Parts: sequence; structure tokens; C-alpha cells
Amino acid sequence: MDIRDLLERVRSGELDIAGAEEMLKKLPYEDMGYAKLDHHRGLRSGFGEVVYCSGKTTEQLVGIFQTFCSGGDNVLGTRASAEQFEAVRAAVPGARYDTLSRIIRIAPNPCEQAGCVAVCTGGTSDIPVAEEAAQTAEFFGCRVQRFYDVGVAGLHRLLGNIEEIRRANCVVAVAGMEGALAGVVAGLVDKPVVAVPTSVGYGASFGGLSALLTMLNSCAEGVAVVNIDNGFGAGYLATQINRMACG
Amino acid sequence: MDIRDLLERVRSGELDIAGAEEMLKKLPYEDMGYAKLDHHRGLRSGFGEVVYCSGKTTEQLVGIFQTFCSGGDNVLGTRASAEQFEAVRAAVPGARYDTLSRIIRIAPNPCEQAGCVAVCTGGTSDIPVAEEAAQTAEFFGCRVQRFYDVGVAGLHRLLGNIEEIRRANCVVAVAGMEGALAGVVAGLVDKPVVAVPTSVGYGASFGGLSALLTMLNSCAEGVAVVNIDNGFGAGYLATQINRMACG
Amino acid sequence: MDIRDLLERVRSGELDIAGAEEMLKKLPYEDMGYAKLDHHRGLRSGFGEVVYCSGKTTEQLVGIFQTFCSGGDNVLGTRASAEQFEAVRAAVPGARYDTLSRIIRIAPNPCEQAGCVAVCTGGTSDIPVAEEAAQTAEFFGCRVQRFYDVGVAGLHRLLGNIEEIRRANCVVAVAGMEGALAGVVAGLVDKPVVAVPTSVGYGASFGGLSALLTMLNSCAEGVAVVNIDNGFGAGYLATQINRMACG
Amino acid sequence: MDIRDLLERVRSGELDIAGAEEMLKKLPYEDMGYAKLDHHRGLRSGFGEVVYCSGKTTEQLVGIFQTFCSGGDNVLGTRASAEQFEAVRAAVPGARYDTLSRIIRIAPNPCEQAGCVAVCTGGTSDIPVAEEAAQTAEFFGCRVQRFYDVGVAGLHRLLGNIEEIRRANCVVAVAGMEGALAGVVAGLVDKPVVAVPTSVGYGASFGGLSALLTMLNSCAEGVAVVNIDNGFGAGYLATQINRMACG
Amino acid sequence: MDIRDLLERVRSGELDIAGAEEMLKKLPYEDMGYAKLDHHRGLRSGFGEVVYCSGKTTEQLVGIFQTFCSGGDNVLGTRASAEQFEAVRAAVPGARYDTLSRIIRIAPNPCEQAGCVAVCTGGTSDIPVAEEAAQTAEFFGCRVQRFYDVGVAGLHRLLGNIEEIRRANCVVAVAGMEGALAGVVAGLVDKPVVAVPTSVGYGASFGGLSALLTMLNSCAEGVAVVNIDNGFGAGYLATQINRMACG
Amino acid sequence: MDIRDLLERVRSGELDIAGAEEMLKKLPYEDMGYAKLDHHRGLRSGFGEVVYCSGKTTEQLVGIFQTFCSGGDNVLGTRASAEQFEAVRAAVPGARYDTLSRIIRIAPNPCEQAGCVAVCTGGTSDIPVAEEAAQTAEFFGCRVQRFYDVGVAGLHRLLGNIEEIRRANCVVAVAGMEGALAGVVAGLVDKPVVAVPTSVGYGASFGGLSALLTMLNSCAEGVAVVNIDNGFGAGYLATQINRMACG
Amino acid sequence: MDIRDLLERVRSGELDIAGAEEMLKKLPYEDMGYAKLDHHRGLRSGFGEVVYCSGKTTEQLVGIFQTFCSGGDNVLGTRASAEQFEAVRAAVPGARYDTLSRIIRIAPNPCEQAGCVAVCTGGTSDIPVAEEAAQTAEFFGCRVQRFYDVGVAGLHRLLGNIEEIRRANCVVAVAGMEGALAGVVAGLVDKPVVAVPTSVGYGASFGGLSALLTMLNSCAEGVAVVNIDNGFGAGYLATQINRMACG
Amino acid sequence: MDIRDLLERVRSGELDIAGAEEMLKKLPYEDMGYAKLDHHRGLRSGFGEVVYCSGKTTEQLVGIFQTFCSGGDNVLGTRASAEQFEAVRAAVPGARYDTLSRIIRIAPNPCEQAGCVAVCTGGTSDIPVAEEAAQTAEFFGCRVQRFYDVGVAGLHRLLGNIEEIRRANCVVAVAGMEGALAGVVAGLVDKPVVAVPTSVGYGASFGGLSALLTMLNSCAEGVAVVNIDNGFGAGYLATQINRMACG
Repeated sequence: MDIRDLLERVRSGELDIAGAEEMLKKLPYEDMGYAKLDHHRGLRSGFGEVVYCSGKTTEQLVGIFQTFCSGGDNVLGTRASAEQFEAVRAAVPGARYDTLSRIIRIAPNPCEQAGCVAVCTGGTSDIPVAEEAAQTAEFFGCRVQRFYDVGVAGLHRLLGNIEEIRRANCVVAVAGMEGALAGVVAGLVDKPVVAVPTSVGYGASFGGLSALLTMLNSCAEGVAVVNIDNGFGAGYLATQINRMACG
Repeated sequence: MDIRDLLERVRSGELDIAGAEEMLKKLPYEDMGYAKLDHHRGLRSGFGEVVYCSGKTTEQLVGIFQTFCSGGDNVLGTRASAEQFEAVRAAVPGARYDTLSRIIRIAPNPCEQAGCVAVCTGGTSDIPVAEEAAQTAEFFGCRVQRFYDVGVAGLHRLLGNIEEIRRANCVVAVAGMEGALAGVVAGLVDKPVVAVPTSVGYGASFGGLSALLTMLNSCAEGVAVVNIDNGFGAGYLATQINRMACG
Repeated sequence: MDIRDLLERVRSGELDIAGAEEMLKKLPYEDMGYAKLDHHRGLRSGFGEVVYCSGKTTEQLVGIFQTFCSGGDNVLGTRASAEQFEAVRAAVPGARYDTLSRIIRIAPNPCEQAGCVAVCTGGTSDIPVAEEAAQTAEFFGCRVQRFYDVGVAGLHRLLGNIEEIRRANCVVAVAGMEGALAGVVAGLVDKPVVAVPTSVGYGASFGGLSALLTMLNSCAEGVAVVNIDNGFGAGYLATQINRMACG
Repeated sequence: MDIRDLLERVRSGELDIAGAEEMLKKLPYEDMGYAKLDHHRGLRSGFGEVVYCSGKTTEQLVGIFQTFCSGGDNVLGTRASAEQFEAVRAAVPGARYDTLSRIIRIAPNPCEQAGCVAVCTGGTSDIPVAEEAAQTAEFFGCRVQRFYDVGVAGLHRLLGNIEEIRRANCVVAVAGMEGALAGVVAGLVDKPVVAVPTSVGYGASFGGLSALLTMLNSCAEGVAVVNIDNGFGAGYLATQINRMACG
Repeated sequence: MDIRDLLERVRSGELDIAGAEEMLKKLPYEDMGYAKLDHHRGLRSGFGEVVYCSGKTTEQLVGIFQTFCSGGDNVLGTRASAEQFEAVRAAVPGARYDTLSRIIRIAPNPCEQAGCVAVCTGGTSDIPVAEEAAQTAEFFGCRVQRFYDVGVAGLHRLLGNIEEIRRANCVVAVAGMEGALAGVVAGLVDKPVVAVPTSVGYGASFGGLSALLTMLNSCAEGVAVVNIDNGFGAGYLATQINRMACG
Repeated sequence: MDIRDLLERVRSGELDIAGAEEMLKKLPYEDMGYAKLDHHRGLRSGFGEVVYCSGKTTEQLVGIFQTFCSGGDNVLGTRASAEQFEAVRAAVPGARYDTLSRIIRIAPNPCEQAGCVAVCTGGTSDIPVAEEAAQTAEFFGCRVQRFYDVGVAGLHRLLGNIEEIRRANCVVAVAGMEGALAGVVAGLVDKPVVAVPTSVGYGASFGGLSALLTMLNSCAEGVAVVNIDNGFGAGYLATQINRMACG
Repeated sequence: MDIRDLLERVRSGELDIAGAEEMLKKLPYEDMGYAKLDHHRGLRSGFGEVVYCSGKTTEQLVGIFQTFCSGGDNVLGTRASAEQFEAVRAAVPGARYDTLSRIIRIAPNPCEQAGCVAVCTGGTSDIPVAEEAAQTAEFFGCRVQRFYDVGVAGLHRLLGNIEEIRRANCVVAVAGMEGALAGVVAGLVDKPVVAVPTSVGYGASFGGLSALLTMLNSCAEGVAVVNIDNGFGAGYLATQINRMACG
Repeated sequence: MDIRDLLERVRSGELDIAGAEEMLKKLPYEDMGYAKLDHHRGLRSGFGEVVYCSGKTTEQLVGIFQTFCSGGDNVLGTRASAEQFEAVRAAVPGARYDTLSRIIRIAPNPCEQAGCVAVCTGGTSDIPVAEEAAQTAEFFGCRVQRFYDVGVAGLHRLLGNIEEIRRANCVVAVAGMEGALAGVVAGLVDKPVVAVPTSVGYGASFGGLSALLTMLNSCAEGVAVVNIDNGFGAGYLATQINRMACG
């Protein structure tokens, strides 16, 4: 909705005042009572729709997916349980599910993949969060390279891959426990590093707090931190950065 | 019990000293051993009785409900499990239960609803807490309007409803994760905003701590914060404020 | 600015499109570069202007006060140092300062005081925060009654004043250390209690955290919590509630 | 073992050096490999034996109980599960179990009860912890009076019982959530108050942290705090104090 | 004030109703506006008056001391600065000050000392808090024995004094940093141990939090914890316990 | 140093083995004993040199600046005190200092500015941190637009500037207290938002923790968080992103 | 891989440049996609291989064990569930499992045991963590002596064993709740004490935080702390130290 | 004092019982009232005496130093202010002071230095803590090599020195902010790494908490953590380990 256009239609009498007033109030979302769906997000940013599945009832979730899919949108569902997926699949046949990343993906018009995002993990246990990041970035049109289990306790594993990692436009560094991976990577590459602390660990890792603080305190420049276990957020941010590099 | 009246009856000899002493000691509650029931609360404030169900045994709970109901009081049970409700219903036939808000409601003489309280949520996952607030306010005689999923990440959804929200005497803002809804709403309306942080979220939301701190630090005036997930407290406070406006 | 009126002026040609577009964008604030002043807040809510002084340079502060005062507004400055006040007074002659509450007050057209707000403290050391609340409420037109040093460690001091406290439309309970005052008061009155934790204390009071948690966890209904030491916020909230009762 | 006596026996030749050396090393406990049992505690302090059951395997627990019981000691088991009790009962026939306090009690020679300890709770949900305190004190020879559900949100319930509470030699105040009971009681009685924070609550009660901080920050003198949910510790401490008063 | 006596005087006409009403309201404290002084505390408990000096203005403090002293009470001022003492001494000639404990003491009728309280510290830096405890207990009539620098890192220093410590009716254990002293002492004596964590330390002592948690988690029975650095509270509690033993 | 080139020189005999071994070990930094200076950073990333001044002695600082400047590099000093600047200026004549951002800037060959970074603050007190971000980005070649005091408590101030903010390649959102600005901005623009929590605030802001948690928990996509008060880090990250967009 | 040798082979033409470049990059690990296995760790340090089992899928785990075992390595699996062990045993016949320590052990060439490590626990519930430490040390060639249930609440149990503990080259002190064991032991022996806080406890033990802080704040010299419940890390560290003493 | 010898002297009558009893009680420390000095520590462990100066009065400190020095002991004073040193020097002429490490050193018979301890820091600001560690180790007879400013943000600085670091018997890794140095070093060397978190940093470093958690959660084996800023403790521990290697 263009405000200048609207005003011109008011002046020309094409649009009456009550209608214009209504349109100025009415913003481009659809109200389902329990959720207000943004159809404009995809338009604005060139991204598809995203549904955070955790904490929603099966009925709510199916309703939301059906509404989005009826418009032919690509839809990404995050943090979905297997049960939620079964219900969605029954209603939306083309839906696919990845048990590791817990992502539901419906992509009638998949994006072409361009540029490059590198996704690294400190250990094997960080892979589910890394896959959420990687698959999110792929959904939104990034080419993704994975470098798993390259934590700083065995530095040669990271150094052995660093040349390839440097070629990415953005690096996603996923690590729990000490969380030092992000800072070490940022010291070795000159692109933004999106740091994802994970809740992997025990004891004084305090559910990811240790890794979070490490990443926030990184001495290397160029580290951008997201919430603990927030693979989706990291994948989204990496996509925004990668798109810039792709022009 | 009026102290002046009592003293006059002592002087006139209508009441002997032992009796007066006893009356001064005996306060208007009923002792069930494991619980001391207030019958006077309803009289004093015009509100019905409230039972916090969580952590009570079924036997205790049934006993409390029966005692209150034998006096014909309206009774609200909060944080009740389905099992607790089944036991209460067996003993008190008119009891009703809402699975979302986990409220048991027994209202032989329901309040008339007046004024207006607006209940808003940031997301869909915050609705159970919001319903506890809304149904509490309704139980105590407020008219309630619900505005769900109007979180600040999609500001147009909130702005599209703000005129209606402004008409309420009090706004209950329910939000988890970042919890910014309360402060943004308070900046847009000139009535008290009761802020309810929820434990919805993950990672650095730390069980609602993030939303709680956000709300306490709101830069907008007029934000009153209650405990994490305390929908009942918010509904009660909103009722007190709404009643004032209704005179 | 009335949107319907603006649209009609566009239709009638009284206002051209570029001008209307500009007006729709331009909201009623004045931009000073380092601060954007709201002139509409007073209009909207019937309250005067408020300036949070802490953290602003003397130059910024004097500029802000001069701008507000040039419009004849009542202005309340909170958390002002004596140095800041000296600079403001030099520029705005009618300014007054209270060393206890650290409030600067400029009130060419002081509000008439109506209704009643009770302000209580647990101890003598809580008085500065209480005075910030009390003087804020007075500035905005409340009659205020003070009940200081009525903490729960000497319960008779509170009970000896409770009848008077009950007559207020809203009670502000200010307490540090254990912070139990708010819950005890809320159990004794049936009006909203605005709870202000203070940083008074030592050791495990952790700068007010103890009192804050106590107040958030109050078992009594009707407790609205604000930030630690936030006397201003409490006074503002109490004013909103008191005004409702005054019709 | 008296050191002077031992030395005299060495000098007299009644005891050889190797034997004396052995006795000086050998302290009065029995080593079961996984646990070292004190038999002397009962002798020293006049109390029976205590076993903290949680976290021990059934085999370990049965072994410990059998060893103690073979000596005819009174034994108190705390934090026992129903399963643990079944195993103990099979091995030690006289064992009894209380499901509320989770206490196993074996008392072939029960103590006579003397003096008086008052055990109060803020709410009904605090009763399990209070019973652990009360039954511990009874096991060790205290007369106990219970005052349950006398929390400060309904102050008249506490005030209605305060004269009786004052007669105790020691008061145990058990409360979760805001935890204000201990400080209010301490302000009303002049005997030591043992404060037990409980993990009852939700949200910002943070598993008992709120009540713990409240109690530590109590403005009333004479409050002794123990660990969250530590009913046993409170009962033990109350016993020590009550015994002193009993001479 | 005896309620039965008052009622009889009402019935006999000796006291009119308005007077009785007034007396029932008027509790035995004196209102100075900024502080409400308890004169009855000394009567009730046999202790003198106590003033917490920190956070009070010099004017307030002098006023409070003068009021108490005009009644001939013994008065103890805690956490007083040297400046506060100078002002008090100017108004109340007999006042004395201890720079280590920061206690002001006015004792026209000093208590006789009886029984025994042992005050121990882990290190030399804990002495100021220990002295606050020791001098408080002495003020209220306890004989006190000091055992300083007997921390568990050099266990022989504690063991070398343990027989004497065992003879006390109550032990006050003052320690910062690891705070293990309280639990070790409690395992060696069979009297209540009042544990005072101090803020002595650095790094992960977090202002006394480490010692506080250690003491709350003590595995030895009979440990009563007070707030960090709360020497006064420990001394008061020890006095209550010591008095019981003295009959 | 190119490894392939080095190996070829070894094969050709141009470089002997000991020399090659030495070079493989020697990486491009200069060792000053107390600090190891990277000369390659500027080469690798096209950025100048950066010195974190806080915590360094004056001697160390002057030495570091002289070493860098002798090579003709642009140098940025962050968190410098006025005293530190005076010492640096005496040694390096062209040095300039900004008291607000506490930045020392030496730029014999200043970068040309391209692209656009928007720097927003919630309030006036956040400006020092924002200026550190803005001047860092300018130093490294970004055009910067400032939008100060546009916090969410007065949403119209933000909305009135949002079209301009949207034109930037990256937005830096600087806010203390509730910290909601970052999430609200991210919901309104489709570029990465670098969120900088500040320590501005009091009470439950806990030195910036509240704003930090709010930003980490933002419900809007595209929020990258840096450490509390880390204006430099935000400016650096924004530069990396802005450069990508500039190709 | 010896760098000097490689360079000589380049010079002699035995190795071409591309090959040398590749070898300089390729470090001695094997890439399985989801995990990068170090074969060199054993060579470098004389220790076998270690697999942290928790959080790995059964497939990943079996793959890792098979790869290591195919080389004849000794392998230690930590934090393994019974289910994980069953899968490993099916694939690697010689595997053994200890349910207490949750360790999987495959040792075709078990180390000879030398020197001495003492492993102590505060209580019976700490034994699982202690066994992880003890069995790790034994796997890597230490002789281990166990001293369980020697916590400081019953000091004679520790003192009765202290002479034997002193003979070890390194002491591992495992304790939950108050965690004072480590500091007391370190004060009694002159060898390094590896302190392992455990999550044993309840209430204010906060999952091991209390014991962790106690150990970090130990006043005795020579205390080395590892993560909460990190028996493996303690056993490894003790092995390193014990080996030094063994020459 | 040998217990067997003492007993034999009792039996032979050489020592009477009272004398023996006294000797068994009297342990080898000297009591100065405010401090109990261990003379045996040096004997037992071959180390000199250590005085923690912070928090002691000048009088106490001088007294302690004089007592130790009168016996000809080497004495190390840690955390001493310049004022404290001046007082000590006046009383003990040979005392020397290092302003960086804040160490007072009196060494009439300095230890010969043997073995090797490597002390590394992440940044320049960590040097004071590192020097406390290094000078402590030197005082107790270690040869020390310093590697400063080798933090992981510029990994080549660490890798360029790693061969030398590997030759040490023990590495002390000192780092603030992210604190990743310890884990990275431990992955590169096979000797124990003593990790010292420092309070260097700002914002979410929370006074060293971030570095502390990072180090506790290190994924590399062989990391021993000490308290924040505890350079002395690290130096002592490193000495114990280095001595073992020196046999």
C-alpha cells in the first residue's frame, strides 16, 4: 500500500474518506484469532514464511500451515515435533521433515542457492542446532558448506579446513560448553561470524550460559551472537549477509 | 465486627468480658487443620473466593471447595490439573473447567460484567497465561477484550488494534522471550498496563527471567509487573483498576 | 492531528498531497538532535512533562528544560544531582529542588490535588525512594499521605495505621531488604498496592534483588511491582489509578 | 575415649605403645566401604542416628539401617522414597514411614517429649517440609505444636494464633514464594525463629531462592536460616535450642 | 497493656469507650515522623534498644539516640560511621565507639555477662564482622570467647582450640571465601552454630555468595545461617540461645 | 607470506631449510614483549589497526601507537581516558580524541565513506556507546546516519524515522534498560540489526543484563547481539556487512 | 610429520610442491563427516583414546568405536547409557561397562599401573563421579586408592585416613553440597588436590554451584578445580600429575 | 612431633602425662591473637611462608612479617598495597615490592630455580595476574618462561610460540573476557594447564565469570581451574607440579 497513491485516490474522489481511513488502519496481515499471519514478510524481504512450531497446539499449527500454503508460499516450520509433523503432513501433502533439525519444509518453489555460508560445529552433539541453521539458510537460497566437529580442543581439525571456511561470505559457528570456536574462527577469517551457543554440556555450562558469555566476550572482531540453540536465527542472519555479498 | 459496637456492648453488660475477649481473638476464618479459609475476603472486597490448586492433595482440595461452596460463594480454582478437577466435580456438581487456563469455576451467582479490560499477548504460546488473566477478570465482573499474537516483532499487528486497546480501563500485556510488548503498549495508551512475563521461550529466556527484566526496566510510564506466568494476579489487579473506573 | 480531518482537507484540495504525506509522517515531537521531546504526552494524558536527568550532560538537560518551559508546561525532573539542578535553575528561574527525592519541579500551573494515595516505607532508609513516589504523585494531582517506618519487623506500627491506609485509592509500599511490606499491606487492604523494592540493605539483598523477588512472589492479590528504586514509576502508576477512582 | 586415661594406661604399662597408637588413630566409626558410620554421635549428643536416604542405592541403605539397628539405636531416615522404605522394612521389621514427610522412623526406645517447638507454614503446600521438621523434632524428644496455613497474606490467621506460638521455646517458620512469614513471626516473638524457605512457588520464586533471600534479609532479629526445603535441619536445630530451655 | 484489664475498666465505667478505642489503637511506640521507635522491645525481651545507623541522616540518628537515651535505655548502634558517631557523641555524652566493629554503645546500666558464646573466624580479615557479633552478644549480657584465624585450611589451628569451643552454649562461625568453617565446627560440637558468611574474598566469592551457599549446604546438623556480614544478627541470635541455657 | 612461494624457493635452493623452517614458524606480527602487534590485519581485511586502551599502562600504550604509526597505518584507539590521550598526543602529533566516544583516532590516510549504516539509540544516555559504534564505522569507511532517542516508549519517534532507517545496509540499535529497540527495529527493516545492550539504567537492569537478554530473545529475525556497551564491536560488524553490500 | 624432513624432501625433489603443500595442510586426523578422530593423541601423550558418549546417536557411537578399535587402540567411553553400551558391545566384543561410573572400557593392551592417586568423596552419593575419576586414572595407568564418605561433617573419618591419603602423588576430592572437602584435604597434604564439585544436593546447592564456588574459593593452596560432575577430567588431570612423579 | 616417640617418652617416664597432653594439643603454630602463624608449612612442603596482605591492617601485617622473618624464613606477601609495603619495609629492611604483581618478597635464602613453568596471557591487561603467578613460582624455585598477549583472537601469535610452551612441565594460562586461551593451549600440549580467569573485561564478562565458566567447560583434557585473578594459587599449583617432574 503506497501512501501517496492512496492520498491521490482520495483527492480524485476515487476513494472515499471512510475507506481511506480504514485502509490506513488495515495492515497486510490475516487474523486467525489465535495468530496473526504476515503475508507481507515474503514480499518485503524475498524470504518465505516461517512458523515457530513449539508451544502451538496441533490444531493451531495445521491451521497456520494451511493458510500459508493455500497462497502457494514456501513455508518453513521450526522446532516441530514428529507428532506435529504428522498432523501437518496429513493436511499439507508436500511437507517434509528432518528429524535432526526438527524442521518442516514446504517448498513448492524452492529458492535457487547462491553465495556461500559455512556452518561449523565444535562437536558432534552440536549438529542438530547446526542443521537448523544450515537448512534455514538453504531454504532461503544460500549454498551451505558444513564443517562439523572442528572444536578448538583439537585445533588442527579447524586449521585443516580454514582455507575453505574463509571463502564463505558468512560463517555460522555453533558450539556448546566452552564455546570458544566463534572467537577463534573470527580471528582467522575476515567475514562476519554468527555465533550460536548451544545448551550442549553439563555442570557449569548452565544450559548454554557458559558458551553464550564466551561468545559475547570474544576478543576477535566480527562476532554476532544469537540466542542459545537458535539455529534458525543464525541461518536467517547468515542469509541476510550472504545476500548482500551476492548483490 | 465493629470494635466500638463491641465495647459498647461490654459496657452495657450485654456482652461479658470473656465473650468479648474471645470475639476479639476470633477472626473470621475457618480452620481445616491443613488450611485456614477466609470467608470475609468476599465480603470485604466484593470478590469471590480463590483457591490455588497446585501442590494441594485431592483430599485437601475437595475439602476446601466443599467448605466454600456450602456457603454459596462463587469460587475460582487456579492452576488445577484435570485430575484435580475430576475430584472437585464429583463433590461439587456445578464446577466447570477450562483446559487452556487450567481454571476451575463455580459461580452460582456470576458477577455482571462491566467496564473493559484488554488482554494482549505477544505470541500464540502466551495464550494459556492470558486466558488465566482474562477468565479471572471475567469471573470478578470485568468485560474483557482479547488481542492475541500482537507482539512487537510485527508491529503493524499491534498498531492495527491500538485504538480498541486504548478504550480499555486497564491493559494486561502477556509476553515471553523478549517481553517488549508491555513497554510498547504503555507508550501508546494512557491507562495502567499490567505486565505478565511468561516462561515461553528457550535458551537465554531463562524461564521467563528475560521477559521479567524487560518489563521491570520499561522506559514507558505506567507498567505494573506481576510474577512470571501469573495470569491470575494480573486478572485480579486489572479487576481492581477496572472497578475504580466503573465507580 | 486528526486523520479524518486531514483526509477531508486532502479531498477538498485545501491540503496538497505532498503536505499531507509530510504531516502523516511528522508526529508531534520536537527534535533536538540528542533528544526528541514529546509535547503531546501532556495533552494525551493530562499529565505534565517528565525528564529523567541521570546520565544527561548539563547542556542537554538545560536545553530540554528550556524547550519544555518555553511552552509553559509543568515539568518534573527525576534523579537530578545538585549540580544539574544548579544549571537548570540558572536557566529556568522558577525551578525547585528536593535533595531527598532528587526531584526538580517546575510547576507554573500546579495541578489541584484530589483523591488519596498512601505511601508507606519499611524503614527510614527507604524514605528517599518514597519521597520520589510521593512528590511525583503530588505533582500530577494526587493528595498523598505518608506512613514511614512501618516495616513488618514491628507489625504493630503498621497495624496502628492500617485504617488510614485503607482509605487511600492506591497504596505505594516501599521496602528494601526482605521487602515483605507490600504483601502484608496487600493482604490488609483491597486496593491496588504498587510495590517498590529498594536497594537498601547489604549482603544477600544483592542491590534490591531480594526485595524485588519477595514482591513478585507475594501471596496476596493486588500487588503491582515496579523496578528497584523506581519511586517515579510508582508515583505515576498510583496517579493513574487514583485518577480512575476520582472519575 | 579419654586421652588422659589412655596416657596413664601407657605409663602404667597397661597399654603398649602400638596399641595406644592404634587407639589414637581409630576413631569410633564403622567402615562399610561406601559409607563410614558414626556410632558416637548418639553418645555425644544424646540424639539418635540419622540417614539421608536420597541418592543411596537400596543395597547401601539396607546395609546402613541394619548396622545401626543391630546396635539397638533409634534411627531416622530422611528423604526416603516409598521404594526405599519397602526395602528397609523387609530388613528391619519395626520401621515406619510417613508419606508426607518421607521420613523412615525406627525407634525401639523413643525419646520422651519435653519443652515446646512451634512449627508454622505459610500455606498448605509447605506442609511436607514442615512435617519433616516437626517429626524430626518429635523423634529427638520435643513436644511440637503445628500452625499451618498462617501466611502473611491473611495476617489475622497468624495473629489469631500468636499467643500460643509465643509459648514455644523455638519457632520453625516454613514458607515458600515470598517467604515473609519468618520475619513477621520473629517480630512478634522473642525466641529464635528457624526459617525454612521452601521450593513451593513458580516463576520468580526460582526454586526457593526468593524465599531464601527474604529470610536472610529479615529486618527482625532472631532469624536463623537453613537450606531450601531442609525440614530436617530445622527440626534438628529447633531440638538443640529447645533442649537448652529444658535444661 | 492487658486487654482483659482494659475491658474490665470499660465495664466498670472507669474507662470510657472513646478512650478504650484509642488505647486499643495506640501501640507502645513513639512516632518521630521518619522513624517509629519501639520502647516495648526492651521490656518484652529483656534486651536494650538497637539502631541500624547505615543510611540514616545525622539528624535522624541524633534524634533517635536522644529519644532512646532520654528514657535511660541501653542503646546499641550498628554500622555507624565515624562521622555519625561524632554527631551522636556530641548529643549523648556517654556514647562509645569501636572502629573495628563500627558499633556505638551507650550502656548506662550494662548487662551482667553470663553463660558463654564462642566467636570464631576463618581468617584475620573476618575480624570486623566477628567483633560486631561479639560486642553485640556482650552488650546483651553474654560472656564471649574469641577464636580468630582458625580457618579450615590449617585445621590444626581449629583442632587445637576445639575443646574450649565445645564448652560454649552457642558458637558463632564467621568466614568468607570458601566459608567451610561453620560446617566443620558444627561437626565437632553439639551446640547450635550460627554461621556468618562474610564478603571477604575476591573473584568467585561474589561478595560473600560463595560462603553463604557453603554454609546453607553444610552437611553437618545444627548450622543456622544469617545474612552476609550480619555480625549483629548472629550476636543477637547467639544471645537468645545462650540465655536459654542460662535459664 | 605465501606457502607455495616459500616451497618453490626451497626447491630452487634460493632459501635454505633452516631459513624456511624459521619463516614457517615466524608469523607476521611484531613482538614488543608486553604486546604482540598484528601488522597483517590491515592487509588481510582492508581495515586499519585497532588498540583497546583500557587496562594498558601509559608506557605500553604510547609504545603500541608509535609502532603502528611509524608504519603509516591508520590507528583507532578505543576506551581511552583523557590522560591516555594526552600521552599519545605528545608522542603522535596527529592524534585526535572524542570525549563522548572515548576514541583516539589517527588517520593519515582516511578511508572514503560509502554505503550506509544507521545508528539508533533508545535514549540520550545511550549516545556515548552509539558514538563509539558510529565513529568506528566511519573510521573504516562507512557513511553513518544517526537516529538518537527513538526508544520504543515513544514509538512515533521511531516510526517517524523508519523510512530513512530502512535505506541503510545495516542498522546498529543501541539501548539500555528494557532494550526493546533492537527487536522492534528488526521487525520493521529487512537488513541485519546489530544490537548493542548498554549498561544505562538502574535497579533490575543489572548493569545491562536486562537489555542483553531482551536482545538475545528478540522474536524478530535478523538480530545480531554484541557485548554490553561494545560500540566498537558493533561498528566493526556493521562495517563488514556494509562493505558486502557495497561490493 | 617432521617439518625439517619435509623441507629436505622438497629440496631434493623427492616431494613435489603440491604434495608438500597438501601435507602441510593435512593434519593427522581421520574425518568421518560427523566426527573427526584424533589418532595422534595416543601417540603424543601415551594415553589411549577417549569418547564422550552423551549426546551422540547410537550409529555415530558405534562408528567411532569401530574406527578406533580397528587400530587396536585402548578406548575409554564416558557418560555412556546402558543402551549405548549394548550397541557398542554388539559391534566391539571386548567392551566392558560399569553401571556406576557409566564408563565403557575397551583395553586390549591395558596400561600397567604405577604411582598412586587417592580418590576421596564427601558422601556416599558422590561415588558415581568418584568412580568415573578412579576408573579413568586406572585406565591410563595409575594405581588408585579410594576413600569414600570422608566428608568434613565427621572430620574424624577424614583424619583417620589422612596418613594414607598423604602418600598419594595427587588427591582427587569429590564433594557436593558444601564442597568443603577439597580445601580441608589441601590443608592437610602437600600434593596437588584436584577438586570435583558434584551436583549432589538440593535447594541452595543449585546443581553443584555451591560446591563449585566453595572449591574455587578454597583458602588452602594447591586446589585445582574442574567442572561439576567432571570425574573424567579429574582422573585425566590426576594421571598427568601422577605420571610426572613416576618420571 | 612424632606420636610414637612421644608415647615412648611417656612410658619411660621421661615425659609426664600433663606435658604429653599439652604437647598433643599444641600444634606447631604461633598465636598472635588476630592471626595464627604456621611455621610448619615450610618444613612440611619445602615452601616458604605466604601472607595474604589484603584486608589486614598495617599493624597486623607488620607483626606477621616480623614474626616470620625473625625465624629467617623466606616470606612472600601477596595482594599488598604500596602503603602496606612501605610499612613492612620499615620493619623488615630486605623486603622488595613489585608494583605490577603487588607482591612483597623477602628471600634471605632464595630457592634455586629448576624445571620449567610457562606463563601465558591472552592480552596485555592480564599481565598483573600473570606476574603474580610467575613470581610466586619463581619464589618457590621454578624456572619461568613468559608468553604474553598470545590470545586466541590472533592464533598465529600462540602457534608461533607453541613449541617452546610445550617444553614446560606445566602451563599457566591467564585470560579474561572469553577466556578461551586455556582450552586451546590444553589441546596443544600434553602437560597440565592451570587456568586463571581474570576480571579483565567489561559488560557480560561479569567480573571474570565469563572466563571462569569457559575454562571450567573446556573440552580439552588437562585443564585445572583456580579462582578469578588468583595468580598466586596458580603459581603455587604449578610449582607443585613442576617439582614432581623435577623429581
